[in-house]
Amino acid sequence: MIPDTTYLNISQLVSPGGTGASRGSAMRDLDIIADAAIAVDSGRIIWVGPERDLPFKGFHEVDCDGSAVIPALIDPHTHAAWGGDRYDDFEARVAGVSYETILARGGGIRRTIAMTTATPAEDLYRLTRNRVERLQLGGAATVEVKSGYGFTREGELASLEAIARVAAESAARVVATLLIHVPPVVAGERADYLDMVCRELIPEVTERGLATAVDVFIEREAFTVAEAERIFAAARGHGLAVKAHVDQFAAIGGVALAIEHQALSVDHLEASGPGEIAALAASDTVATILPGVSLHLGLPAAPGRALIDAGAIVALGTDCNPGSSPLYSPQLALALAVRLNGLTLAEALTAATANAAAALGRFDIGRLAAGMHADMIVLDGPDWREIVDTLGGNVPGSLYIAGEEVW
Amino acid sequence: MIPDTTYLNISQLVSPGGTGASRGSAMRDLDIIADAAIAVDSGRIIWVGPERDLPFKGFHEVDCDGSAVIPALIDPHTHAAWGGDRYDDFEARVAGVSYETILARGGGIRRTIAMTTATPAEDLYRLTRNRVERLQLGGAATVEVKSGYGFTREGELASLEAIARVAAESAARVVATLLIHVPPVVAGERADYLDMVCRELIPEVTERGLATAVDVFIEREAFTVAEAERIFAAARGHGLAVKAHVDQFAAIGGVALAIEHQALSVDHLEASGPGEIAALAASDTVATILPGVSLHLGLPAAPGRALIDAGAIVALGTDCNPGSSPLYSPQLALALAVRLNGLTLAEALTAATANAAAALGRFDIGRLAAGMHADMIVLDGPDWREIVDTLGGNVPGSLYIAGEEVW
Repeated sequence: MIPDTTYLNISQLVSPGGTGASRGSAMRDLDIIADAAIAVDSGRIIWVGPERDLPFKGFHEVDCDGSAVIPALIDPHTHAAWGGDRYDDFEARVAGVSYETILARGGGIRRTIAMTTATPAEDLYRLTRNRVERLQLGGAATVEVKSGYGFTREGELASLEAIARVAAESAARVVATLLIHVPPVVAGERADYLDMVCRELIPEVTERGLATAVDVFIEREAFTVAEAERIFAAARGHGLAVKAHVDQFAAIGGVALAIEHQALSVDHLEASGPGEIAALAASDTVATILPGVSLHLGLPAAPGRALIDAGAIVALGTDCNPGSSPLYSPQLALALAVRLNGLTLAEALTAATANAAAALGRFDIGRLAAGMHADMIVLDGPDWREIVDTLGGNVPGSLYIAGEEVW
Repeated sequence: MIPDTTYLNISQLVSPGGTGASRGSAMRDLDIIADAAIAVDSGRIIWVGPERDLPFKGFHEVDCDGSAVIPALIDPHTHAAWGGDRYDDFEARVAGVSYETILARGGGIRRTIAMTTATPAEDLYRLTRNRVERLQLGGAATVEVKSGYGFTREGELASLEAIARVAAESAARVVATLLIHVPPVVAGERADYLDMVCRELIPEVTERGLATAVDVFIEREAFTVAEAERIFAAARGHGLAVKAHVDQFAAIGGVALAIEHQALSVDHLEASGPGEIAALAASDTVATILPGVSLHLGLPAAPGRALIDAGAIVALGTDCNPGSSPLYSPQLALALAVRLNGLTLAEALTAATANAAAALGRFDIGRLAAGMHADMIVLDGPDWREIVDTLGGNVPGSLYIAGEEVW
């Protein structure tokens, strides 16, 4: 616990420049101040600048000489509320077993749905909290967690309740999203399922404050553009933000629909082409890339470089989930975005902080500037680039959330 | 500190099968015992088996119910003794600057040599120890550390002295290797340099017990096969083991030379072809692959799958170094070997334990069996495959070295 009025003296302060989200080449514009100070009052940053210009007297000093300080990372895309595991699927896949065979053996996402809905509430809470804490050790102060393995009304509510309890009881800022993830297996049941989602689930989630956004998986094997449109309309009608999983395997129109509905973000984009990239560059919808999937599945990475060159707002997430991205570190996502998606070091930092905040509709986190929450990483070394260079392990340093040291 | 005679009761014991190194398809043969016990006396394993068969009375019990236990990982290839950093090089490379331009700006390995030789002994010790401790958090009980950024006789001895101090003062088992890394810039000075290495450095290192093996970087830009042969002869003449960096960019004959000299291992192998693979399959020299380099540099991965299919003994290392593999986690090396080199989960575990031990000439670590040192990881969960599945963060669980809990 640090006193209300405190300042950190640090060797290097590094923050995305500007205000709000950074677009295209502006993602490379970092504010860097040597021998800096950050003044904090009641969990908010009230001043940053060269230490010699600090305008306050009598503040408690935290000596971070020798350290670079960056905004805490923000993980805007996780599926951290699951039960069971998918080690059998992973082992079969690397041994060359086809996805069809894995499904026939009872694997795939529907296995995770079965395991999650069979998990007692207390266990689902504990598992989710444990994963959020691992993501914190990987540098995140803010973690988005989606439902989506609940499937039924009861299952989805149970997942959102577990997430709400983690939000209440862990040090992290947790942002809950209702994810409409997979349709019923039987085609004839899809209309009834959508009715349930739009007429029961979304209203109840809204009323109980269990999520701030609704996400839809738009894909050949998941929901169509027309189905997603109906879900978006219901969500927006209840005042919820919308976002979508798009273009993971095929670009079937999800990007255009999401932009039309002013989605906060579209996520994945591995199969996006020039048309989708140009549309995102002309919109305020954030393009969230997920390099853990590319590494885990050995599939092509999302065109991060092309998105930034075109002028899009690119953010970065772990996609932490048991099937396609068992990635527990936002820091490693940052490091992978440079290696796999062609981002520069500065672009990756902006993607994981200010732009990840925008993907959650938040503009009070993700930068080190007056008015922002005092969420920051005090690195062990004096050069911020270490956090992008490093592969493996927890982040070496300290994480502050609202001015409090978490680790 | 646990009492001398102790046993752990565990949910799943997992160890590479057989004795010594495992070759080819035998790398997939794991000994797995459910509801097992491991009995430890004075830092050694004295018995493993089903808990119900435990033949001892009065041993102190450590309750690890719910946990899988595997051998502690062994990192057989690091360059953890360096000064300075290479963030400028990394940033330039990802921005598209050519390697020639980076060198012309004073970057590349010779920058690390300059920074390392300018680092005071106390600082080099502290930096090296810090990295070894990070590698421990990534699951390693045993870490090999090479010199090679010292270049001159004095510089190489200073690096080996720093490594020796880490070996004496850290909890890890540290194995020191003298690496003859880069030749003089001026071609005319190569013969004198080799004279110094063979007539002064190797004898002094042997006499002072500062390394157990000599490694040579055989590559177009480094040492020729003929030069390496001379170094190998000197090393073997002094009773030191030999190993080599081979086929990283081009296969110029290093594999054949190393096998002829009964090298413990040849490391890298990204450019190895069918001839090198067949030669390794017919030899006892360990083929050590280093997936961190492939990820960091975006270059093709070593043919791990083909090496195992041919019958070679494959091991796995981080190659932890500032220029080509800033990878601080043997666990992530294990996870990457499956994604990038085509190993199965079981093969990767064997590569990172029993076979990594063989790459260091050690047969008293790397398995959970009577007679071995009690170096082991007690995982938080009941299924060993978690450690291969997980991307990012430290290893969740506890590390024991010689029966003592390190974390």
